[in-house]
Amino acid sequence: MSFAITADFIASGNTALLAAHEDDYAALGRQLERRGIAIEKLVARAMGYSVAVPTWGVGTGGTRFARFPGPGEPRHIHDKLEDCGVIHQLTRVTDNVSPHFPWDFVSDYNALRQEAAQFSLGFDAVNSNTFQDQKDQKLSYKYGSLAHADKATRQQAVEHNLKCIEIGQKLGSRALTVWIADGTNFPGQQNLSRMFENYLDAASQIYALLPRDWLIFLEHKMYEPAFYSTVISDWGSNLLAAQQLGPKARCLVDLGHHAPNTNIEQIVARLIHAGKLAGFHFNDSKYGDDDLDSGAIDPFRLFLVFNELVDAEMRKAKDFAPAYMIDQSHNVTDPIESLISSAIEIQRAYVQASLIDREALAAAQDSNDVMGAHKMLKQAFITDVSPILAEARRRKQGPLDPLKAYRASGYRAQKTAERPPVAGNSSGIV
Amino acid sequence: MSFAITADFIASGNTALLAAHEDDYAALGRQLERRGIAIEKLVARAMGYSVAVPTWGVGTGGTRFARFPGPGEPRHIHDKLEDCGVIHQLTRVTDNVSPHFPWDFVSDYNALRQEAAQFSLGFDAVNSNTFQDQKDQKLSYKYGSLAHADKATRQQAVEHNLKCIEIGQKLGSRALTVWIADGTNFPGQQNLSRMFENYLDAASQIYALLPRDWLIFLEHKMYEPAFYSTVISDWGSNLLAAQQLGPKARCLVDLGHHAPNTNIEQIVARLIHAGKLAGFHFNDSKYGDDDLDSGAIDPFRLFLVFNELVDAEMRKAKDFAPAYMIDQSHNVTDPIESLISSAIEIQRAYVQASLIDREALAAAQDSNDVMGAHKMLKQAFITDVSPILAEARRRKQGPLDPLKAYRASGYRAQKTAERPPVAGNSSGIV
Amino acid sequence: MSFAITADFIASGNTALLAAHEDDYAALGRQLERRGIAIEKLVARAMGYSVAVPTWGVGTGGTRFARFPGPGEPRHIHDKLEDCGVIHQLTRVTDNVSPHFPWDFVSDYNALRQEAAQFSLGFDAVNSNTFQDQKDQKLSYKYGSLAHADKATRQQAVEHNLKCIEIGQKLGSRALTVWIADGTNFPGQQNLSRMFENYLDAASQIYALLPRDWLIFLEHKMYEPAFYSTVISDWGSNLLAAQQLGPKARCLVDLGHHAPNTNIEQIVARLIHAGKLAGFHFNDSKYGDDDLDSGAIDPFRLFLVFNELVDAEMRKAKDFAPAYMIDQSHNVTDPIESLISSAIEIQRAYVQASLIDREALAAAQDSNDVMGAHKMLKQAFITDVSPILAEARRRKQGPLDPLKAYRASGYRAQKTAERPPVAGNSSGIV
Amino acid sequence: MSFAITADFIASGNTALLAAHEDDYAALGRQLERRGIAIEKLVARAMGYSVAVPTWGVGTGGTRFARFPGPGEPRHIHDKLEDCGVIHQLTRVTDNVSPHFPWDFVSDYNALRQEAAQFSLGFDAVNSNTFQDQKDQKLSYKYGSLAHADKATRQQAVEHNLKCIEIGQKLGSRALTVWIADGTNFPGQQNLSRMFENYLDAASQIYALLPRDWLIFLEHKMYEPAFYSTVISDWGSNLLAAQQLGPKARCLVDLGHHAPNTNIEQIVARLIHAGKLAGFHFNDSKYGDDDLDSGAIDPFRLFLVFNELVDAEMRKAKDFAPAYMIDQSHNVTDPIESLISSAIEIQRAYVQASLIDREALAAAQDSNDVMGAHKMLKQAFITDVSPILAEARRRKQGPLDPLKAYRASGYRAQKTAERPPVAGNSSGIV
Repeated sequence: MSFAITADFIASGNTALLAAHEDDYAALGRQLERRGIAIEKLVARAMGYSVAVPTWGVGTGGTRFARFPGPGEPRHIHDKLEDCGVIHQLTRVTDNVSPHFPWDFVSDYNALRQEAAQFSLGFDAVNSNTFQDQKDQKLSYKYGSLAHADKATRQQAVEHNLKCIEIGQKLGSRALTVWIADGTNFPGQQNLSRMFENYLDAASQIYALLPRDWLIFLEHKMYEPAFYSTVISDWGSNLLAAQQLGPKARCLVDLGHHAPNTNIEQIVARLIHAGKLAGFHFNDSKYGDDDLDSGAIDPFRLFLVFNELVDAEMRKAKDFAPAYMIDQSHNVTDPIESLISSAIEIQRAYVQASLIDREALAAAQDSNDVMGAHKMLKQAFITDVSPILAEARRRKQGPLDPLKAYRASGYRAQKTAERPPVAGNSSGIV
Repeated sequence: MSFAITADFIASGNTALLAAHEDDYAALGRQLERRGIAIEKLVARAMGYSVAVPTWGVGTGGTRFARFPGPGEPRHIHDKLEDCGVIHQLTRVTDNVSPHFPWDFVSDYNALRQEAAQFSLGFDAVNSNTFQDQKDQKLSYKYGSLAHADKATRQQAVEHNLKCIEIGQKLGSRALTVWIADGTNFPGQQNLSRMFENYLDAASQIYALLPRDWLIFLEHKMYEPAFYSTVISDWGSNLLAAQQLGPKARCLVDLGHHAPNTNIEQIVARLIHAGKLAGFHFNDSKYGDDDLDSGAIDPFRLFLVFNELVDAEMRKAKDFAPAYMIDQSHNVTDPIESLISSAIEIQRAYVQASLIDREALAAAQDSNDVMGAHKMLKQAFITDVSPILAEARRRKQGPLDPLKAYRASGYRAQKTAERPPVAGNSSGIV
Repeated sequence: MSFAITADFIASGNTALLAAHEDDYAALGRQLERRGIAIEKLVARAMGYSVAVPTWGVGTGGTRFARFPGPGEPRHIHDKLEDCGVIHQLTRVTDNVSPHFPWDFVSDYNALRQEAAQFSLGFDAVNSNTFQDQKDQKLSYKYGSLAHADKATRQQAVEHNLKCIEIGQKLGSRALTVWIADGTNFPGQQNLSRMFENYLDAASQIYALLPRDWLIFLEHKMYEPAFYSTVISDWGSNLLAAQQLGPKARCLVDLGHHAPNTNIEQIVARLIHAGKLAGFHFNDSKYGDDDLDSGAIDPFRLFLVFNELVDAEMRKAKDFAPAYMIDQSHNVTDPIESLISSAIEIQRAYVQASLIDREALAAAQDSNDVMGAHKMLKQAFITDVSPILAEARRRKQGPLDPLKAYRASGYRAQKTAERPPVAGNSSGIV
Repeated sequence: MSFAITADFIASGNTALLAAHEDDYAALGRQLERRGIAIEKLVARAMGYSVAVPTWGVGTGGTRFARFPGPGEPRHIHDKLEDCGVIHQLTRVTDNVSPHFPWDFVSDYNALRQEAAQFSLGFDAVNSNTFQDQKDQKLSYKYGSLAHADKATRQQAVEHNLKCIEIGQKLGSRALTVWIADGTNFPGQQNLSRMFENYLDAASQIYALLPRDWLIFLEHKMYEPAFYSTVISDWGSNLLAAQQLGPKARCLVDLGHHAPNTNIEQIVARLIHAGKLAGFHFNDSKYGDDDLDSGAIDPFRLFLVFNELVDAEMRKAKDFAPAYMIDQSHNVTDPIESLISSAIEIQRAYVQASLIDREALAAAQDSNDVMGAHKMLKQAFITDVSPILAEARRRKQGPLDPLKAYRASGYRAQKTAERPPVAGNSSGIV
């Protein structure tokens, strides 16, 4: 029988940390009270927050040069669900997974849904894959998929997406995420306008067959892996596409898919204004599409994104219902540790952004009290809300210190024993 | 009486260069013929091309640290028109100027129009200025203009734009170009969504009062001079704004106003697709909004932009009627030399892009002959079309070598004598 | 008589905040104790920290398009010293000012030194200015200064620097900071190698005449205001120059003068390795050389820089004695507020970086416990050390809440009354 | 027997194109003569130019997401040499290959050298590989190689490099190129200084055992594949390392390994000044380390690099002897076509830069004739030197139109028949 972390283990770990936690929590509560904030309300918000984990994220990623797998790598979607279950068990904020096809193909999706439910997991948006050629695939995606010059290749890519929807319906998903690697490596390789039209033509076929209560999430990316141009390279192209497809098409924001220096939080504000924000692929980056751990490089940027999100939530912006997902490549850490840490950093930014007195902020803005308005954001950001996050976990029977609990549990060592290594790079470079 | 370059001077300069020109022109003609291209058709296209010069461009620009004026600086719009007249006389491609208010305020605009006509110049889009405070201005633009938090300040900015339209009608303009410096220097300084809504509210008042046959050109800019965010920071925001305003609102592309690494030619393609391309502010840049001379840093990028434009022209893209304008800051050159050179570089890119066999290119693209398609673009770019540009000028009584003619004419020395230096920085840092 | 903030005013302001401060301070003390850190040691470090304020920073800055002065602008170095005195009085960490010539020219520098001492201020590095032409200047810097093609112009720039040293000696300075705007706007404008050699030739003349106990700080900058190239564009060029000049030449790091995405903290580590780190011009930036308030855009980056500095201090790196200075442009805030806030943010990063257990970190690094090592940094960064900073100020008779104290003092309003507005832009766009 | 392109085939292809070539060549000769340039001298320079081809470049590259192999892929170093031979046969400028180990391991290197000689190929710098784990490798490079925290791992990497030198000596190489992927993915993962010192310690062991007449080329790279930092991230770090190692250590410039907006040509000038320029890895890029075809994205940048190189050659700069190599990833083209095209684009830039009258340029620079100096560069760049390149090939029995000759030869189809497809990704994602 497979090893699992028990509730008792978590509870006994908490006991040792409780006194310190209670001191920190009480002190923060008093400080927030002096600032006019009820800590209980924030704990409630922290408890209500949720972000999905991608099934592929629990495997070790790589670069185009190398991939160095770790011990106990998941071998298939069943192992991945188990790992995702641990992440949720220890963070209590990741109760959905986002599957990827064909990587997660199985024969029985109803069984898979039940299997996930045993880990208290549901299924978020399904991700299609037309950026790799699969064995026995008829037409190659070397020169594109949904935007390919050849209609038959586009059609094949459309059908793959329709299949993903079909699977997703069985899994309880409500959205399809479409990221394509279509683009060009040379000026002149394709006509930039015609390629976009081809994409729209193909995407509209998928759109037409979306189930009634589904959304389609379009994802833009500046450059990798199509080097001179990508068809959906920026949020402007993404918006144009989503507008043309219709109201069920929305724009996904991946934090690593932008030009250097881009003000991502303003893009979030613009997409909210347009009623077109699908949600997020969270990660962090320093140079390019680095897919680093959320909040590892620029935690203030993550906070500023959530400042926009909480602002929109508070003023009940129209059509505002973002889907939150992590999308990272874990090359040198235990992926479970990275996902635990990232989920908490995302939740941290959400709670910090919730500290802001929106009325006071608006008043400072309206009177052009620049320093005053700015300091309200900074004050929220420098507040250490860790006790709130810990308390939220504790109340949901989670650990006060998830990374400590994970390391103490021996989970990875157990899985290393349980999962014989796979020959080759079968889990794929991601 | 004011010094002017004469037709005789130009003609006699050409005489000395004619034999060499004819040899080059004939050789290029033979080469193009072998490539299936009629050189005469290209001369005709070169002769039909036109790009506007900004009145402020003939003054010396500067940085935020210093401005080093040159000799014979224009003192007012009358001197500027004279300088612009010389540029057109020597290039034969700049028969319009784009005025800027309040910099070009005069008491009699009908007289100004006639004055310009004497230099064979007309008036292109009028530019408003709400990024500086003018003497006796009631409300300051320190914290914004069309997007200011305060309605009265927005109103003042709206009225200035309406006044610009009024003047523009007298001058024969057909478009208003709106670039604002509104933005924030600090996260939190303003609500990013509210600021955009304020802008839209104000801009729609201008839009509502546009003359029937006018367009409004919205200009985006990533960062200078509002440092943490700008309201219209990218083409996506620009597109959203133009869509909301209506069919007479279009998006202007300034080549220096984008994030690093941005694929500007694809933005051009997208705006054409959306029927929203207003036109261009041509310049070049290496780092930021450098406002360097067109084609001085990345001539292939300029060519790729024109590749999109000629492609759209050839396939008769809907609502495609771009306005071409130069917008540069000349800090260390004689501005007249820079504008002569830039106008020719722009015309060069237009003619080079016209060399491409669009049918053959489409065939290579459709069959994914990547190298073949790319080489068609490169072949056009490496072709030295200088003889075509020279011939186009010659046939319009212009000089074969405009920079040489300008230097030989002694124009700058004459103007230095005619124009006593102005005290202070009266012509403004641009 | 001139208005001044009194010690009583500060003390009475503290009284009202004391109970809350003591609660926060005690709670943080308990938490740190549990983490093995003595809070008193950190208060001592906070009290020992110091960062210099630039005299020009108390005036309102601008962009190349506009400058919008605020009320009560300082009119001359005497007003500036008064403003700098207030910043130090309220932060207790800015006991030096960095003067700039010719902007701060006076007739009697001994008197100026005594004047500064009355505000408890001393003088840090002197800054020369060869990026602007001054009235009655013989040769122009339009085409460069220390790197000018013309020897006489270089000589003039050398002499200005020598004059700055002479003044600095009277003021008690020990270093000369040299930033030049020399560069080119066009490929080909100058020979890139020859320009560098010209610079080295001129700089070595200054170096040769440095007083025995002085250092020369060379400052690199990627682009503004010389657009296509700058002579000292990056830390590599800076290092080469400092090596060639000799041991008293060091490299200054301005946080805003780098290419997009640059890992500045690693540059700091490299300069420490080379024994060539002069010190810092602190500010923050999102796009280019934005000169925004320190920590306003990317506070984690500021922390990571201090992580390197504290690491070098702890391991007693050779020749490690960095000079700390703020260099910002305050366009939309009260400059005094911005400098107060920035000084505290810099001190905050220093204290946070001091929280790290260097031995434990090294152990995690040596065993490639990536997540463990990273979390040690993050844990230090998310710790809210505000109570330590407040306590350090309090013990030096400073205010617990400096911005609140400043606003309550009415200083700006008093100065607005005392300082009649100057005609024109006499304080210069910086 | 293996298919090969014959001299007769090339000669007969030239016959059909000769008349057109002679017309173009004569016309260019007359034009250059009018500009004071002897075309024969340029043909001689073109004939004397040489750039090495990397053995791995003839295989299809990929991204971290996918690799789409083409038909007739080379299966091993023998096939690769054959392909490289064709590139040289058709361009007559690539008479050296740069091998990579372990990818090109064979049992008999003397035989390999003779095999290469049959294709008129010699061996340029050898490339080591410590960025991937090889089967049966004792210690993993997951956390680094030459800069690894663990001494034994560093030692293993040192030994691999020594083995490469040993092989290189047998092959007739004279230099070792060291690029490592060492770096960190998280702030704090390693101590930035200690990692650099570890690198220097290991590299100095390799340096100490360099054969007397060998050089070591250090290659810097900003980010991929170590995402938050790389040990040798920029030319400054590279310079520091090369200085510390000694006179036989030099700095390699890969055009794609820099921060956005970097002025690469100035880095070239600085390394020449320091006597530390090793040479080049030529490619082009738009966004990151794209490894696109040389001159495909920014041909003017390539020209500006050669402008520095020809300038250094002409003024006989000390220690100036750069090694030229192509380093590209060919994902969507026939790699042979890309390498043919790239070699010619590099040669084109070299010849264009040779058109410049260095004395006239210096005179314009010395008198600050900015536009005049700039136009000398632009005039060289817009000159279509294709007839010179074609003539240089023709005189060496190469084809006038290499791409046309290659396509007509049927080489790829022949090799597709000769080379049965390899199972899996055996040639590796590069």
